[in-house]
Amino acid sequence: MSDALSRLCGELVAAGQFFHSRGWVPATSSNFSARLDAETLLITSSGQHKGRLDAEAGFLRVDLQGVSLDAGKRPSAETGLHTLMYRRDPAMGCVLHTHSVNATVLSMRMRQVVLEGYEVQKAFPGVETHEGSLLIPVFPNSQDISALAREVDAWLEANPQTVGYLICGHGLYTWGATVADAQRHVEALEFLFECHYRQLLLDR
Amino acid sequence: MSDALSRLCGELVAAGQFFHSRGWVPATSSNFSARLDAETLLITSSGQHKGRLDAEAGFLRVDLQGVSLDAGKRPSAETGLHTLMYRRDPAMGCVLHTHSVNATVLSMRMRQVVLEGYEVQKAFPGVETHEGSLLIPVFPNSQDISALAREVDAWLEANPQTVGYLICGHGLYTWGATVADAQRHVEALEFLFECHYRQLLLDR
Amino acid sequence: MSDALSRLCGELVAAGQFFHSRGWVPATSSNFSARLDAETLLITSSGQHKGRLDAEAGFLRVDLQGVSLDAGKRPSAETGLHTLMYRRDPAMGCVLHTHSVNATVLSMRMRQVVLEGYEVQKAFPGVETHEGSLLIPVFPNSQDISALAREVDAWLEANPQTVGYLICGHGLYTWGATVADAQRHVEALEFLFECHYRQLLLDR
Amino acid sequence: MSDALSRLCGELVAAGQFFHSRGWVPATSSNFSARLDAETLLITSSGQHKGRLDAEAGFLRVDLQGVSLDAGKRPSAETGLHTLMYRRDPAMGCVLHTHSVNATVLSMRMRQVVLEGYEVQKAFPGVETHEGSLLIPVFPNSQDISALAREVDAWLEANPQTVGYLICGHGLYTWGATVADAQRHVEALEFLFECHYRQLLLDR
Repeated sequence: MSDALSRLCGELVAAGQFFHSRGWVPATSSNFSARLDAETLLITSSGQHKGRLDAEAGFLRVDLQGVSLDAGKRPSAETGLHTLMYRRDPAMGCVLHTHSVNATVLSMRMRQVVLEGYEVQKAFPGVETHEGSLLIPVFPNSQDISALAREVDAWLEANPQTVGYLICGHGLYTWGATVADAQRHVEALEFLFECHYRQLLLDR
Repeated sequence: MSDALSRLCGELVAAGQFFHSRGWVPATSSNFSARLDAETLLITSSGQHKGRLDAEAGFLRVDLQGVSLDAGKRPSAETGLHTLMYRRDPAMGCVLHTHSVNATVLSMRMRQVVLEGYEVQKAFPGVETHEGSLLIPVFPNSQDISALAREVDAWLEANPQTVGYLICGHGLYTWGATVADAQRHVEALEFLFECHYRQLLLDR
Repeated sequence: MSDALSRLCGELVAAGQFFHSRGWVPATSSNFSARLDAETLLITSSGQHKGRLDAEAGFLRVDLQGVSLDAGKRPSAETGLHTLMYRRDPAMGCVLHTHSVNATVLSMRMRQVVLEGYEVQKAFPGVETHEGSLLIPVFPNSQDISALAREVDAWLEANPQTVGYLICGHGLYTWGATVADAQRHVEALEFLFECHYRQLLLDR
Repeated sequence: MSDALSRLCGELVAAGQFFHSRGWVPATSSNFSARLDAETLLITSSGQHKGRLDAEAGFLRVDLQGVSLDAGKRPSAETGLHTLMYRRDPAMGCVLHTHSVNATVLSMRMRQVVLEGYEVQKAFPGVETHEGSLLIPVFPNSQDISALAREVDAWLEANPQTVGYLICGHGLYTWGATVADAQRHVEALEFLFECHYRQLLLDR
């Protein structure tokens, strides 16, 4: 393994252990990717438990179209939702898909999650105040990942400031320039989803 | 100890530690089993704390009728709910009974838990989409384990696609071909029960 | 330190670490005791954090009237609620007072917590079925510990089957023949309190 | 590094790890400070994750006006909310700002949190009984830290018995003579906020 690949594997393994400790990657849900170079990604292989990833068996390399570069290893069915992000932005370094209870519950009850007045909104690039609002869109779930990827792509084209999205009943996608940035965005959004859920309970 | 027995003990000890870290095996509740060979099971012995199982004292061997094969060691009172699963299916490798707050609360309030639209439903064998529904039956609790086992057996005969069941006030039974499979099913069902509970709170 | 004293200290330190990991001993709340011999108890000293007890500084010996046997060390103000239990029953081996969110919230809203239909009720000595009911009384809080101890004593005299009690806004007292038994009772009662709170939310 | 500086760094690193394990310092929220001497503070540097603080990169020294004493290191934007506390009171040893879900949710729904009847109120200096009430004021959030600091200062001048305050959507500030004291106050207030939130849910 190259040094870069080995380092990125280590960072994604650690991210998975942290997410698992919070219950955000149950069973074999979720998948993670990171950029190795302009044309190559590292991505979790299909069917792994994301809280106990093995640096060897848990990952493979794919190109920006999602074709495996490691003979015999199969990427997640949802690879197309990762590759579109790296094709859109050469500075994209990491895409994390997690699957928490709150992300799942909120995504099944609303078409978008609107977050306003939270200081933690400043965790996202370009946000300097709590006074704006953060809109997290929810896409209908589909087992047709190509169609879903096209829908996400069109949304991002029209709403380039988006920091993450939900798929109905299926959890969160967010991203960043580095694994640390993307992990910080997961942590900030999960915090905000728990706040939002707890506010909803009081509002009824 | 044989290698297979030693390996299975280790897997069940680790499963118990994980479940305990989540609060799913309180006090001396819960019990676990795994298949050693066509005629022999490994099962947790009576009265142990499942989060701190000792590989030596925590387990014994029983036959498929639940008779102890280890002189002086007594299996759990609920052994009959384990053995029926192994008699029903030669590919059955592991049965896990856990006892979470959500499984307990839901089981005391409904006759079945119906889960629909969740991507995590795909954690179960043969489920390829979130579009179907997963029905988890709830049986009345009873200290007459033989009678309860007959009721479960009749249900499974009529509903062979069942992936787990609840006993009222008493928690979850689920299973799989390996300890890892059964543990993944516990994790997926507990995730779904927490989603279901949180949805119920919003629905009132 | 004698072997027995050293072993009991170790068990109470470990119990405190476990309770702290669950959030049941916040700040310097809670206190723990265990019997050393017919006339002597080990008890946590005043003002310690129960999740980070030091075997040396964290404990002292007292007699059954609560008088310190270790010069310069002061027992908890609530020592009288421990000593009464050991005076009542020569088989009493351990008394644990914890302070969870659920115990606190429930104790401020009702005069008793009635638990029915839970399999976990069998965690308590002499309970063989889920069909009975477990009644946990709630006493008004008071800074006059002697008066509170007399009230508790009178209740236990009239209701010898009691397995634990709450003090309003102040948490849980439970006990057992050994540290392991008392710790199991804390774990079972905290499980039941969380079930009860979650049921109350659905019942409103 | 001096011994005192090294010891205080270690205490704040450990406090951050504990708070992170509870979810009270999400993403790069929160900041911590401690007094080095009459004129000098140690404070977390800008943009660090408070659950994984590095003793070297994570901290810098500032004077009581918040001016960096370590060339090239920038203190948190909220430093002014720390320095005011040390200027007000020569016995002030530590100020901790955390950012939990409950502190955030409560602060967005009320102008003050009033806590009454909780035994844990005794965790604060000078409180000898559960019978009084603890009032935690909520200040409107602002990116103008100087203005916010003046508002806090005026409140504390008028209400010197205050043990902590909330900023709307932005979490908790509390303090103490030592890191251990301030950490105990965080733990006590977070316990009380969770109790308060759970009571609110039952009260609706």
